[in-house]
Amino acid sequence: MPRIVGFDPGSRTTGFGIIDYQQGQLHYVASGTISTDPKTPYLDRLPTIVEGVDAVLQEYQPKAAAIERAFVAANAGTALKLGQVRGITMGLLILHTVPIYEYSPREVKKMITGKGNADKQQVQYMVQKLLNLSGIPGEDAADALAVAISHIRHL
Amino acid sequence: MPRIVGFDPGSRTTGFGIIDYQQGQLHYVASGTISTDPKTPYLDRLPTIVEGVDAVLQEYQPKAAAIERAFVAANAGTALKLGQVRGITMGLLILHTVPIYEYSPREVKKMITGKGNADKQQVQYMVQKLLNLSGIPGEDAADALAVAISHIRHL
Repeated sequence: MPRIVGFDPGSRTTGFGIIDYQQGQLHYVASGTISTDPKTPYLDRLPTIVEGVDAVLQEYQPKAAAIERAFVAANAGTALKLGQVRGITMGLLILHTVPIYEYSPREVKKMITGKGNADKQQVQYMVQKLLNLSGIPGEDAADALAVAISHIRHL
Repeated sequence: MPRIVGFDPGSRTTGFGIIDYQQGQLHYVASGTISTDPKTPYLDRLPTIVEGVDAVLQEYQPKAAAIERAFVAANAGTALKLGQVRGITMGLLILHTVPIYEYSPREVKKMITGKGNADKQQVQYMVQKLLNLSGIPGEDAADALAVAISHIRHL
């Protein structure tokens, strides 16, 4: 059964979501966030991200990964930090030989809600509906689940 | 004997340099570059970087790593790509439990040449002199060796 991991890497919080796909059906497996303490110096926060992403890959053994193509921030310093967190995630996926697929935020919103300019709440709502979740997932986890669903729909 | 690896991550070429330090003496061990084909799509170039960095760490088993703090590009898109390559390098260092130290380009130039605004050629020349190399190292390898030497001098 194909198992997809979605990642939403951020310099403070990285969301992840795991979905199984079988006979046209989506099955929610897990989701959550890897959070770092913004009071800790940036370099000292990176091991938490490495350990968290590695633990997700070890535990759930996904067959493919979907990541939202980064929204390029106006600020180059922010883009650099975000890029580093994305690089950590991508490097670990490559080490675990999990193929990576990127989708733009617009593609994800369109595939999940039908509108390329949907807001965060609409994405959260549709993720809950599509996966039959009992509660609304948090923003970062919802974004990670959304990109995983987008990859499955794209296949 | 402390062995230091220096990295100069770039979106096309990542330089590396390995130096041993014993009784106040620097000993050149190895240096080189991990290059990717700019004609290959960006995402498909990342495994080459992962494999290259991982191979350097496996082969030389450094005890600490020094990386130049990124010069933040004017362009956020460039900064994001550079950040991703840096993140791959940092993530692998963390997985190999190699502590990471960052130095600004200005600190490195000052520690190597005495001038914070030295040019590339001056850095290459001083790296050759300090390590008694028979030839001038390439720019990327010289930058990686320079940050490794800077870390040793900083200790």
